[in-house]
Amino acid sequence: MSKETYYIGEQSLTFPEDVYLISSASVVGKKEGEGPLGNAFDMICDDDKFGEDTWEMAESTLQKEALTLAMGKADLKADDVRYLFAGDLLGQNIATSFGLMDYEIPLFGLYGACSTAGESLSLASMCIGAGYAKTVAALTSSHFASAEKQFRFPLEYANQRPVSATWTVTGSGAFLLSGKKGKVRITGITTGKIVDMGIKDSMNMGAAMAPAAADLIAQNLEDFNRTPSDYDKIVTGDLGYVGQEILINLLKKKKIDISGMHEDCGILIYDKEKQGTGSGGSGCGCSAVTLSAHYLPQLEEGSLKRILFVPTGALLSTVSFNEGQSVPGIAHGVVLEYAG
Amino acid sequence: MSKETYYIGEQSLTFPEDVYLISSASVVGKKEGEGPLGNAFDMICDDDKFGEDTWEMAESTLQKEALTLAMGKADLKADDVRYLFAGDLLGQNIATSFGLMDYEIPLFGLYGACSTAGESLSLASMCIGAGYAKTVAALTSSHFASAEKQFRFPLEYANQRPVSATWTVTGSGAFLLSGKKGKVRITGITTGKIVDMGIKDSMNMGAAMAPAAADLIAQNLEDFNRTPSDYDKIVTGDLGYVGQEILINLLKKKKIDISGMHEDCGILIYDKEKQGTGSGGSGCGCSAVTLSAHYLPQLEEGSLKRILFVPTGALLSTVSFNEGQSVPGIAHGVVLEYAG
Repeated sequence: MSKETYYIGEQSLTFPEDVYLISSASVVGKKEGEGPLGNAFDMICDDDKFGEDTWEMAESTLQKEALTLAMGKADLKADDVRYLFAGDLLGQNIATSFGLMDYEIPLFGLYGACSTAGESLSLASMCIGAGYAKTVAALTSSHFASAEKQFRFPLEYANQRPVSATWTVTGSGAFLLSGKKGKVRITGITTGKIVDMGIKDSMNMGAAMAPAAADLIAQNLEDFNRTPSDYDKIVTGDLGYVGQEILINLLKKKKIDISGMHEDCGILIYDKEKQGTGSGGSGCGCSAVTLSAHYLPQLEEGSLKRILFVPTGALLSTVSFNEGQSVPGIAHGVVLEYAG
Repeated sequence: MSKETYYIGEQSLTFPEDVYLISSASVVGKKEGEGPLGNAFDMICDDDKFGEDTWEMAESTLQKEALTLAMGKADLKADDVRYLFAGDLLGQNIATSFGLMDYEIPLFGLYGACSTAGESLSLASMCIGAGYAKTVAALTSSHFASAEKQFRFPLEYANQRPVSATWTVTGSGAFLLSGKKGKVRITGITTGKIVDMGIKDSMNMGAAMAPAAADLIAQNLEDFNRTPSDYDKIVTGDLGYVGQEILINLLKKKKIDISGMHEDCGILIYDKEKQGTGSGGSGCGCSAVTLSAHYLPQLEEGSLKRILFVPTGALLSTVSFNEGQSVPGIAHGVVLEYAG
């Protein structure tokens, strides 16, 4: 394969060498364990503090447990993992820093808001595809309580939430990638640009992120010269019900109909009626644990042949929000295929 | 070259294809312009708000200007740059998000505290070395006022600072990397692990980061089978006077003497006596603008043949600090060589 064929179209890459997703793990909190995917997660903890004193350290523990489980499933040790590509939602990535330092693995810290699951898988794939390592890990986390404290109000305020608001998933998903043959292959990625439609409502992040997802999906189809039906599923990270509707309509205007194969991790992870979770789940952990627990098993057994996984992120902080800035979105796409 | 030779030793990579640093630019604030490197910077702005309403938007403008200048010097447009690898110190990387969105270039958002200049150059090098793009950009920024607001106190408090404290540099450095021959080549990288020595003083970040720098430098020498004198300079990012002394002593214990060729961007950028900057400069922008304005010209003309550039980061947030956590450090090393 000549070098020129690695990058295709405007924003996509295919990989010169095979990139396999050889192991993954999902660790979630109590509420996620009570949701529709409850039986699929590797570990559910009834104590959302995971035995720690603070919400932030609880989130660090989520990452630690997810990585340990993913390595254990692949019979690998920390020494076997050459790089970590990891991030979370908290200012200065503290869940990641304090969660992963004990492993003593070289770390690339990432921030892509809730799109970080896609960003970390993209960079990890690029690393394996280039032959820079035998095995690397991609992982992300979010925690309902640390995110509320960071972005909104302390839980003790018990503030009300509009129905457009999403519920941050308490969870961490870890993925091991390798050049060694596995059951699921990452065949390409499409890397997102920031898209700003001027949305200023931080309680409606689905609307802020949907345009970025629409752009990314349209670009992926163009770059790979595919139609939506070339994918068994097109899976967004955490648009929720509000964002899903906007996404499907935005793509219809571009004559792209994904209504038949679109799913959203934020919609799948909670039971809207019974769990009071508004528009759906969100956070770096939402798409990561849903990919690990729900989609990967179907890709491994071949009941899904090819999916486009598109975690979406809303790029805001309390500072930018309070200063009247908009909430730009970004999305990162990863193509996963059954490898037989 | 066989694939197995790309990764060497425990933490390092060499590149299968040549990676060149073809252009760079530095934009700084008034104080940096008055310092010892003042004449070397591409742009100095007397107004530290850079015409914006907020410190955060001022920092965004720094990144925007630095990237525009770096592209202009190379006679390239945004369309020619396939990926941005970028980050800053602010929670949720808002300086980067709001600074770079207008370019509409696929973005990998990064967080490595003040080590992000090294992290971004590392990932950009990996991308070019693998043939994933013709041209990519790596850029970082920091701003004294946005950092003080984020990490310490609003400027209006006029609080006192211990002499061990560093002064966050207002500046942004942008770098363009390409496979096309240029005067400076990136020949390898060494990627850092988190090192936590239990330091809890956020006003003494040099001490928190020095152990990570020492580990990284020792590992680089081992991985590449070099001695310190194989480098004309070993350049850390922002250890300052306090951190420099600790670094040199830590390495002496490992029988490595870098006292003859060690320099620190944080020490170079300000005049300690005249500018009242305590232990020295710090921030993502400190090492980036010093590399661009001070070291690259010497590498381009061949008066420096090979340097090891080691930006260092202190991984803390106000939340982790207030919860009593330590300040772990990380460092990322980049080997730059005169390419004739």
